[in-house]
Amino acid sequence: MEEYKEIMQAKKGKVDVTPIANFFREEVKQQITKNCWKPRVVAFLTSDDQGAIDYSKWTKLACQKDGIEFLLKRVERVDLEDLIIEANNDPCVHGILVYYPVFGGMMDSYIQDVVSPTKDVEGLSTTNRFNLYHNIRYMDGETATKKCVIPCTPLAMVKIIDNLGIYDKSLTMGEHLKGKTVTIINRSEIVGRPLAAMLANDGAIVYSIDINGIIIFQAGKRHGTIKMSETTVTREEAISKSDILILGVPSPNYKVNSDLIQDGTIVINFAGCLNVEESIQEKSILVPTIGKVTIAMLERNLLRLFNNQISNK
Amino acid sequence: MEEYKEIMQAKKGKVDVTPIANFFREEVKQQITKNCWKPRVVAFLTSDDQGAIDYSKWTKLACQKDGIEFLLKRVERVDLEDLIIEANNDPCVHGILVYYPVFGGMMDSYIQDVVSPTKDVEGLSTTNRFNLYHNIRYMDGETATKKCVIPCTPLAMVKIIDNLGIYDKSLTMGEHLKGKTVTIINRSEIVGRPLAAMLANDGAIVYSIDINGIIIFQAGKRHGTIKMSETTVTREEAISKSDILILGVPSPNYKVNSDLIQDGTIVINFAGCLNVEESIQEKSILVPTIGKVTIAMLERNLLRLFNNQISNK
Repeated sequence: MEEYKEIMQAKKGKVDVTPIANFFREEVKQQITKNCWKPRVVAFLTSDDQGAIDYSKWTKLACQKDGIEFLLKRVERVDLEDLIIEANNDPCVHGILVYYPVFGGMMDSYIQDVVSPTKDVEGLSTTNRFNLYHNIRYMDGETATKKCVIPCTPLAMVKIIDNLGIYDKSLTMGEHLKGKTVTIINRSEIVGRPLAAMLANDGAIVYSIDINGIIIFQAGKRHGTIKMSETTVTREEAISKSDILILGVPSPNYKVNSDLIQDGTIVINFAGCLNVEESIQEKSILVPTIGKVTIAMLERNLLRLFNNQISNK
Repeated sequence: MEEYKEIMQAKKGKVDVTPIANFFREEVKQQITKNCWKPRVVAFLTSDDQGAIDYSKWTKLACQKDGIEFLLKRVERVDLEDLIIEANNDPCVHGILVYYPVFGGMMDSYIQDVVSPTKDVEGLSTTNRFNLYHNIRYMDGETATKKCVIPCTPLAMVKIIDNLGIYDKSLTMGEHLKGKTVTIINRSEIVGRPLAAMLANDGAIVYSIDINGIIIFQAGKRHGTIKMSETTVTREEAISKSDILILGVPSPNYKVNSDLIQDGTIVINFAGCLNVEESIQEKSILVPTIGKVTIAMLERNLLRLFNNQISNK
């Protein structure tokens, strides 16, 4: 994008992702207006956590502005499963959103799978993740009319990297990130692992790091497959040789030492708190938050699911 | 069972579950022999963890003794997903078993769902758990020929409770544990939650405790449904009023204070380490380990899945 030309040439500075978010939201809004669509999301909030409440307000505001009906429901967590199943069965609901944590731990993974994959705007259900990992693009198999959705946050990250001009579009599909090294500090099934798979699928070598160690993700031999492998490369080595460093450790105490990060590295932080000193922007490109693009991707996923559903009729 | 009459009458002592395990294994063995069946399990071991290695040896020994072909495969964790998919597609494999942890965290929940629900001897896939929570007994809907499987460890627990004579069979189905209070310290999706649902389904009031707090599970208004509710009852109060106390905290440092436990309470420990002082057996009924019955349930699940698969042909 034109907006980032200066920063990208200087190879340092702070990136505000608002223009990227606005670009995709505008696209969504136009499609809705043009077709007189009325897509509806039901969002379930079970906690009093201020972070979750704030995020729900932001999502609601953005969606309403773009022509999406956004029903925010405050519910008891013990009733959540039944309410999700009701929403799954309600033909007037096109997308379902849950603010986590609800119970915490594995029960929340279970809840993610109670949401029907056909209404899973966040792209968190196992079905949607399995399809992503196995390069399955359609929900309806060989009929190939209903596109899968991709988890919002990793999708947002890919769109940001793309719009910063990192993808080399002169190369063939699947090689746009060829020669690039990426380190992702987070291997959750919500962000870190799907993202590692997506960037590997675009040709990058990805070091995926969590408390249990490091795994390398790269493109497999067959197109669209991912190869994981063990490595003896350390966390420090991986960070030092990375063109892109992605940070997602949900703790304000976790900070990567700036000395490890090379000049000109693109540092993208999605942790909620900053996992690096802010001064890194004096020698690298810092994207401190990505939330606005995540919301735009949520809208985009919703339109895809809406489309899949109206094509049933 | 006759073997437990004395202990149950004295309302104290230590229970060895071997007779219960043998009873179910004998049943499995006879069915296999009578029908000349050749059920095959593939078990994947990725770690050097001695606990996992030992458990895999025990499972293999038991299965082989009972006429089950047990292929134990030591594999790299980065290859596991592909190998599971291969086994899913192999018509000569009837059951698939994975020794966890593999990667740890959510990636392991994902792996559980890569195993086809039709070969999921452990009953850990989301589909099999969802069916359990919603009282769905068959995998093939209204055709109703292919029975679902239930997670092995909670199923073992129910069989132990039943064989100790706690179920009041004079009451109607769904009320066999009516009036009984149970506390379960563990709410994992592998053991604690499915178990809470099963015991609630049999009429008990269940206090389900984990680090995030307490939730009550009891039978819902419609038969087969479960009602969850919040409570102000404390952990100590729940333990004190329980007829059955089930312990599953994977830490040798976690011990429930014996003073909290009433005389005659049935204490079942499945933690790997004992979550209570051994001396509790002087005033209560202690079941210190249940692993042998878990293996018997695994064999039982395998036969069910084998049956479902041969009925396809």
